[in-house]
Amino acid sequence: MAIRYPNGRKYTPINNADSSVKKKIHKEPSYSNRGKTLEDEIDEANKFYLANQTAVIHKKPVPIQIVKVEYPSRSAAVIKEAYFRTPSTTDYNGVYKGHYIDFDAKETKNKTSFPLSNVHPHQINHMRAASAQGGICFLLVRFSTLSRYFVMPFDIVDQAWTAMDSGERKSIPLTVFERDGIEVKESYMPQLDYLKALTTLLPIL
Amino acid sequence: MAIRYPNGRKYTPINNADSSVKKKIHKEPSYSNRGKTLEDEIDEANKFYLANQTAVIHKKPVPIQIVKVEYPSRSAAVIKEAYFRTPSTTDYNGVYKGHYIDFDAKETKNKTSFPLSNVHPHQINHMRAASAQGGICFLLVRFSTLSRYFVMPFDIVDQAWTAMDSGERKSIPLTVFERDGIEVKESYMPQLDYLKALTTLLPIL
Repeated sequence: MAIRYPNGRKYTPINNADSSVKKKIHKEPSYSNRGKTLEDEIDEANKFYLANQTAVIHKKPVPIQIVKVEYPSRSAAVIKEAYFRTPSTTDYNGVYKGHYIDFDAKETKNKTSFPLSNVHPHQINHMRAASAQGGICFLLVRFSTLSRYFVMPFDIVDQAWTAMDSGERKSIPLTVFERDGIEVKESYMPQLDYLKALTTLLPIL
Repeated sequence: MAIRYPNGRKYTPINNADSSVKKKIHKEPSYSNRGKTLEDEIDEANKFYLANQTAVIHKKPVPIQIVKVEYPSRSAAVIKEAYFRTPSTTDYNGVYKGHYIDFDAKETKNKTSFPLSNVHPHQINHMRAASAQGGICFLLVRFSTLSRYFVMPFDIVDQAWTAMDSGERKSIPLTVFERDGIEVKESYMPQLDYLKALTTLLPIL
């Protein structure tokens, strides 16, 4: 299959005012996150949740197609040739208070909207299927330049995605995040307490 | 909240002498599975469940520590040095009728018992944590030589594991699988309909 992930992602031009889109992961330190990547922040939260028996949520390993492995004597097996594969699911899933949790983490430098080019069709399909089974699916989006984080329920993302398919929309405005999502405010432990935000949004939890 | 298994059932050791333990994965074809590996059979079932909107269950990728990646021009990135890492979870998870499902697949050539040396401490710890969150955890065990498959609830495995820690037991007898697990009978589509067996065992599903 496709072997471009994660570095060869196709770039889809955006034909509106949001064309200053960056597809690279934001690595620069901002004031609040002190140089941590979004993945680091989520891993830290997940470790905290696990240690405190709040939830069991893990990042899935990056899928790799292994072509050649060598077995040096008295040493661990060494993979000498392998390729990145396109994942068929989101990156994170687990269980929280009896609920199946499934999400992907996304980052943009854009200050006014989240470009849907950051989301892949297989991720949409996966979250549709998991939602249909009663899973709780969402995106955890970091607006890096603004140092703002949002939990955005999948059904809102799916609506924007479907609209995009008919040419109406190519990004989700920040104002929609403010209205339909829930902002993850910086916390103490864990710093990125995204499950607390999720619980606020979905009182069923 | 956490334990969904029928109450009052306890793991009881059965004293069959059993030391002819095999740890290696069984690769030879047997009559009924026509040479498929257990992983192939589960993948086939999971694809069927996904296509028929029965459940969304995926195998997690093998975790890899990537050390060196090259980027040949006009080609996909090539991983030139990487190592296998120990997984911190089980191999399979997903969502089924609103329930978080989490299991590992195990195989033994042994005809009378399942050696607990096939199970790793990190898998036990993970399933304990996921069970405590209300997840449905189990082992899917194939007795290769017998061509028999069982869904074994994690609480039974955990009781046997704890007993092992105090030196009392090093395997779970087949008779305990017959009594406390549920056999997965060969089906048509999918051939290994393990969720049907799970539903039989746990009528709450």
